[in-house]
Amino acid sequence: MPHLDYLNQAFQLANQANAKQIRPNPFVGAVVVDENGVVIGEGFHQQYGGAHAEVFAINAALQKMNDLSKTTLYVTLEPCSHFGKTPPCTNLILQYKIPRIVIGSRDPNPKVSGIDLLKQNGVEIIEMILPAIEKMNAVFFANQIKRRPFIQLKMATTINGKIADRLGNSQWISNTASREYVHTILRDSADAILSTAKNIIQDKASLNIRIDETIKELSVVVIDRDLDLLKPEHQSVPIFYERMNSKMYLLSNKTANDLPKNVEIINVLFDEKNQIKLEDLGEKLLQLNLCKVLIEAGSKLSSYLIENNWADELIVFIAPKLIMDQQAINVFENDTEQLLIAATNLQLEETKLLGYDVMLRYTFK
Amino acid sequence: MPHLDYLNQAFQLANQANAKQIRPNPFVGAVVVDENGVVIGEGFHQQYGGAHAEVFAINAALQKMNDLSKTTLYVTLEPCSHFGKTPPCTNLILQYKIPRIVIGSRDPNPKVSGIDLLKQNGVEIIEMILPAIEKMNAVFFANQIKRRPFIQLKMATTINGKIADRLGNSQWISNTASREYVHTILRDSADAILSTAKNIIQDKASLNIRIDETIKELSVVVIDRDLDLLKPEHQSVPIFYERMNSKMYLLSNKTANDLPKNVEIINVLFDEKNQIKLEDLGEKLLQLNLCKVLIEAGSKLSSYLIENNWADELIVFIAPKLIMDQQAINVFENDTEQLLIAATNLQLEETKLLGYDVMLRYTFK
Repeated sequence: MPHLDYLNQAFQLANQANAKQIRPNPFVGAVVVDENGVVIGEGFHQQYGGAHAEVFAINAALQKMNDLSKTTLYVTLEPCSHFGKTPPCTNLILQYKIPRIVIGSRDPNPKVSGIDLLKQNGVEIIEMILPAIEKMNAVFFANQIKRRPFIQLKMATTINGKIADRLGNSQWISNTASREYVHTILRDSADAILSTAKNIIQDKASLNIRIDETIKELSVVVIDRDLDLLKPEHQSVPIFYERMNSKMYLLSNKTANDLPKNVEIINVLFDEKNQIKLEDLGEKLLQLNLCKVLIEAGSKLSSYLIENNWADELIVFIAPKLIMDQQAINVFENDTEQLLIAATNLQLEETKLLGYDVMLRYTFK
Repeated sequence: MPHLDYLNQAFQLANQANAKQIRPNPFVGAVVVDENGVVIGEGFHQQYGGAHAEVFAINAALQKMNDLSKTTLYVTLEPCSHFGKTPPCTNLILQYKIPRIVIGSRDPNPKVSGIDLLKQNGVEIIEMILPAIEKMNAVFFANQIKRRPFIQLKMATTINGKIADRLGNSQWISNTASREYVHTILRDSADAILSTAKNIIQDKASLNIRIDETIKELSVVVIDRDLDLLKPEHQSVPIFYERMNSKMYLLSNKTANDLPKNVEIINVLFDEKNQIKLEDLGEKLLQLNLCKVLIEAGSKLSSYLIENNWADELIVFIAPKLIMDQQAINVFENDTEQLLIAATNLQLEETKLLGYDVMLRYTFK
């Protein structure tokens, strides 16, 4: 069997993990193959803090044979070379004298550089970098490289790019199938929703996960400089549902006492235009283990995030409607010149029909 | 075989016609079936001025048997009862005593009412109105019911509904595949393009049909109140290519002498906002045998046509780009209030991937 097939087998294994159980770690799968091409060990990373994929695969191989010096290890991600929650996988590879390793993606963390260490010790490294394997860890890579959560921006628009009429009415532009998709796919896979106090109050939002008849909690991060949500008149906003295993984080430059249960204030800075400063926000959200965040907010915040390269994916639901009113609210807009020649280019990743709505998913380049 | 199968056979026959050869007539297919369920005659309308589908089918049946008094005629459109270019088909049906007719769509022309006449003469009429059969004649129905051409509106937009940047640059928002689609599918099936002198001059447009290496002519209707295109400085606009079998119609309230070959002025009225009056324009375009017209113009004219129910289809090409500048040009906009509750609803008919552009085709309800 060619390398690609074994690597794909490792890829399938990697995908068996539950994203939320491994966060903030990546998906990793590994396969050990003997000199006759027989798979003698398999493994994948299953749980944050638990063993790495390579450990499972090598231990399984050792059940079959003591001498791994003629085997090949296929692993979807460059093996780690540092002490984290577990010892470095490179140690294990060198200990058992595995002579050849095929990897499907590089680890963006400069501290890792397992490849260099292995090469220095005479291990042959074959790099078969596969886009599908890299995409599997888009969240992990964004976290590592950009030091912020992976950001999905969700918007429901008319055919002509309006998200609300001139009075701010936006419920509902998209249809039931689109809204179900938001709950079952987007919200359910996010670690939190990020929105603004203004939007939450205006939409009387709960921002939980409603799938069929069941309701699941979801953490929420709210930009709320003046802690408006804590004012007495907003105590009945549905976002204040009783939280057993989720949190509400208020991003503010103020403090308050006697917070409701499971509500926390995260201190952040705002610039002279009252825009939240993004510099250290990413690190703060990562520290809360919010690796993947869904933005459900208005045009202003969403445009600001795009402008500042704080968006990884854009998911647009296009409803079969037109609101032709020039005072209706456009989906993304700011007040600086942007010519066609300097347009923001995206990559179309997926299209989906949801009833007569069309879902388009893009990544930012 | 059930009625539906014979009717579908007639539908397949109808579709064999070339739309431009039958204009302004509809697609029609017909099948005659004997008492044993055997198809003994087939036909379809092939050429404007030529025989109707029923005539072909009945004549073919008469080659097989003299007595049609136990047969059933399946025809996709209600048979005509008036003298046009040919005698009424109802005469033929009654002459040969065909006792039963299954029709797939009604003729919207009140002069026709073949059904009533046939019923009065004891013919059994079974109506199996099929949406696919009605859609086949969308152009004909629009012409008959609305007394104007069938109007397709084409627009290329960014994800956020911009058709040009603040300087008016729009070449090119959509990709090569989308532009090829415009030529091979949209322009090639249209009787003419309708645009404005302003757009044509600005885009240096030729508005012909370019498919692979070949160039085909296409008639063009230009809203040009002041006959700007005839001014000396615009004689080199590519729209003035040498026309052998197409025309350029200028819609104006002025007159001029010494027009270039194949250029005609059609006198129309303009309102106090300089918008073209649509009242008698439809009839004038139909008289020119322009049954299906593609609009390739800017936001202003397109929005005006939608507002005045002068659009049947909207075809949007969504490019994977954002122009976030609020001064960039929005695809459809006017200056009157339109709330979400009163949004213009469309029907999604088709989606198509063209490279990384997404084509969405809608009909207006």
